[in-house]
Amino acid sequence: MTEPARSPEVRKQHAVKRLEEDIDAWVSTSSADGTPYLMPLSFLWDGETLLFSTAASNPTSLNLQATGRAHVALDHTRDVVIFTATVETLRAEELPPGAADAFAAKIGFDPRDAGALYLYFRFTPETLQSWREANELTGRTLMRDGTWLV
Amino acid sequence: MTEPARSPEVRKQHAVKRLEEDIDAWVSTSSADGTPYLMPLSFLWDGETLLFSTAASNPTSLNLQATGRAHVALDHTRDVVIFTATVETLRAEELPPGAADAFAAKIGFDPRDAGALYLYFRFTPETLQSWREANELTGRTLMRDGTWLV
Repeated sequence: MTEPARSPEVRKQHAVKRLEEDIDAWVSTSSADGTPYLMPLSFLWDGETLLFSTAASNPTSLNLQATGRAHVALDHTRDVVIFTATVETLRAEELPPGAADAFAAKIGFDPRDAGALYLYFRFTPETLQSWREANELTGRTLMRDGTWLV
Repeated sequence: MTEPARSPEVRKQHAVKRLEEDIDAWVSTSSADGTPYLMPLSFLWDGETLLFSTAASNPTSLNLQATGRAHVALDHTRDVVIFTATVETLRAEELPPGAADAFAAKIGFDPRDAGALYLYFRFTPETLQSWREANELTGRTLMRDGTWLV
């Protein structure tokens, strides 16, 4: 049964809680010539941005380095939190103090210990939407140009 | 706790069951100039291809019409079934007999009844992978060039 539509305020609280507590997201990127690439990756939310890490040679990494853009969804197609993001590429030594440790503690894997070179990627959400079912498509946009609307 | 890695045969059985029974997938597309777009959409599996439908004017639709390519994942980041696909665009009258009815019966929505023009998209998987956790990354490729390897 479809639940009643939630208010924008309730949706924002839910989206922020998911950003704080979820571990994985679907990261959609594209090569410069328009080949889409989708991969689940773990992240750490700092209240404003999401930190991801993947091997420097992976398609997601190459796409992010080339385009600086991603479309990201938290898990579950019937409880959607989805956003476009601008993306900066960072090496471990360029992260703020403690960020690499906090990332490793949450994810259970430290990219600094990987055999291959891993890069970090800081995602800044631009347009963020949240809905559960069709009755919530109206009012699904909660952030635009990086600013919460509610 | 991480489960033991499954055999390729067990993974294929699981992937086919998910294709038969799941309703939603994450569809990653790109514009011709490399802007990624991610959206959950419902699908119908016919044993070889997946049928999707979305409004003709939606970004996913425009991207599929322009590029004919998608990267698709079934739901759940810790039980991954993911594949690249080539995509044909079809109007309702171009579908095989019964396909539009079967689609509407499964999805609970008939695109032929929508106010706006909806198109159908037939996805043919090319490379399909399945894994749950890091211990299953080896052996995750179950289909290559549209042919099951197991």
